[in-house]
Amino acid sequence: MSSPTTSWRAGDHEAAAPVIILGLGQMGLVCAGMLTAEAPASPGGSDVLMWGHNPEEVRALAHTRHSPRLPEFKLPAGVGVTADDAAVASARIVVVAVPVQFMREAIGRLAHRFHPEALFVSVSKGIENGTLLRPTQIIADALTKAGRSPDLPAPGLAVLSGPTIAAELARCLPAAMIAASEEAELARRVQSRFRNAYVRVYTHADVTGVELAGAVKNVIAIAAGVCDGLKAGHNAKSALLARGLAEIVRLGEAMGASRETFFGVAGVGDLATSCFSPEGRNRSCGEALGRGAKLADYLARTPSVVEGVATTKSVVELSRRHGVDMPIVQAVHGVLFEGIDPVRAIGRLMARDVGGERVG
Amino acid sequence: MSSPTTSWRAGDHEAAAPVIILGLGQMGLVCAGMLTAEAPASPGGSDVLMWGHNPEEVRALAHTRHSPRLPEFKLPAGVGVTADDAAVASARIVVVAVPVQFMREAIGRLAHRFHPEALFVSVSKGIENGTLLRPTQIIADALTKAGRSPDLPAPGLAVLSGPTIAAELARCLPAAMIAASEEAELARRVQSRFRNAYVRVYTHADVTGVELAGAVKNVIAIAAGVCDGLKAGHNAKSALLARGLAEIVRLGEAMGASRETFFGVAGVGDLATSCFSPEGRNRSCGEALGRGAKLADYLARTPSVVEGVATTKSVVELSRRHGVDMPIVQAVHGVLFEGIDPVRAIGRLMARDVGGERVG
Repeated sequence: MSSPTTSWRAGDHEAAAPVIILGLGQMGLVCAGMLTAEAPASPGGSDVLMWGHNPEEVRALAHTRHSPRLPEFKLPAGVGVTADDAAVASARIVVVAVPVQFMREAIGRLAHRFHPEALFVSVSKGIENGTLLRPTQIIADALTKAGRSPDLPAPGLAVLSGPTIAAELARCLPAAMIAASEEAELARRVQSRFRNAYVRVYTHADVTGVELAGAVKNVIAIAAGVCDGLKAGHNAKSALLARGLAEIVRLGEAMGASRETFFGVAGVGDLATSCFSPEGRNRSCGEALGRGAKLADYLARTPSVVEGVATTKSVVELSRRHGVDMPIVQAVHGVLFEGIDPVRAIGRLMARDVGGERVG
Repeated sequence: MSSPTTSWRAGDHEAAAPVIILGLGQMGLVCAGMLTAEAPASPGGSDVLMWGHNPEEVRALAHTRHSPRLPEFKLPAGVGVTADDAAVASARIVVVAVPVQFMREAIGRLAHRFHPEALFVSVSKGIENGTLLRPTQIIADALTKAGRSPDLPAPGLAVLSGPTIAAELARCLPAAMIAASEEAELARRVQSRFRNAYVRVYTHADVTGVELAGAVKNVIAIAAGVCDGLKAGHNAKSALLARGLAEIVRLGEAMGASRETFFGVAGVGDLATSCFSPEGRNRSCGEALGRGAKLADYLARTPSVVEGVATTKSVVELSRRHGVDMPIVQAVHGVLFEGIDPVRAIGRLMARDVGGERVG
């Protein structure tokens, strides 16, 4: 049993351990806000630094404390911003907020700089093209390929996910998140570090399920946006949400995830906010396509990465590899990459054989 | 094996069998629209009659073809409207669109008039106060109590449910529904009768699950509306949706329903549209309360029944009876009937112990 003083020191130590956030995108920014906000039980103001690969963007953010990627957000005063690779060395927690298709490059570049006991927390959602790896798998693989010493312990890996449209977190609106790790202690560390007055964090053990749910929901959200672009209404979009959830469950179970995960906050919760929030990036992309925009034009004029676009390719591959039927994902692929008209793609979904309902 | 001619006659017979709709509310009206719309495979224009207990309302609807309950809807030319109890006698399908707390009275009054082989299709969502019965159970119980002859076969019972905000169905926007019956043949009859160019109908066997999902989602939608009234955002509402779904699953499993049902169109699909559609009656009621309205004032100025209000009482009773923890439903009960401030009720939900996530 520890004395009160020892407990207090342990908690204080964890709260003050330096954190580095890799990536200056929306999720990186709101993580900086979450990590420096007043926690329910302890004072805020931990040692948080953001790292970006683009020196100009780093300078602009450090100077203005604002980013064009999330205009309403103001970077808290205590948060530093750097482009210096050496700055990652002291961080005991590395928040990986780099878009999934660029994650391997960033981790590989910094691999020799990380603290040997650093805990990596992915807050990005997607599946890597080609390798079909999930974010925590990309991190582990990139560290290994960069020659992480076999004498070191395996890197600590966790994922933080949930219904977290960044624009709402930027306004400190209440949210719930899931901290998942195969090691329960690491999930609890992420929980105690990220929870604050407006974000509630639950722990979870199913890393595969949480990461798959976060990735595939972006694809379903594109389909939901197409529904919005076609002005199909909330009934149709909600039926699509339910059928999309069934696709996520089928793929997840084929890949060894627990179906419970998909019915929780990181599953149906994240899917719901992604399909309904007007500020969701993937939904907004789908809506533009539903209204007749061309994908290349839309992406060219959007400052943020639309993760669901690249992820659609990976999920179609995964569904083939695991022999899982995913008609909505397939329809999104058709709209994005095969020149299929959104109206026809949605029409095809509606016209599929009507029969008994099947979830898994 | 039947000849093509016989098949055609059988289909034609089913399509032309007289239907009566009990109740002139939103769902009754849109059912009249659905049943007379062009079907994908067969011409529309079946024999559809609406019955209402209030002669003045019947006359107004018959004359104007419009109802103040659903202003944008125009009653199709072929649909009759009557207050004559004897008119129900020829109907082979009885669509029960009476609010749940008035269903027993309507069925009891008409019990001796129904065709002995009539199929009853409930499209209402709720749980009866006091008895805690679901709609199809109320129908069966009311028929028995009215002295339905034991020489007759048991009445055919089915439920038609799903994400169907009435205002959207009135505009013929696309939707998906679930036709559930313990007898597969009856579910298929409802499916073939209701499906049309804009509504897709799936069959299902879990009547308990479909009816419970439809009832409890109205309570969760009130909580979602409170979130909206407090301007808590889509992230918080989506987390609430996920936690609410978990409550529905726990109660449903304790009552013998299949958990699969809750993850389908009639479960999470209906929950999503009810929590997010601005036109949902239960969500709108919650939003008004979240903004500070008094329940009695709100109900007095609303032309339609807000089913979730009475249902909240029944669901709290069911949760006690089955020993199931339902904190969101309990919070809604507090707001509706115990004078608890909505901000405090939602705050309490947020402050519950944080730990591992649990779905069922």
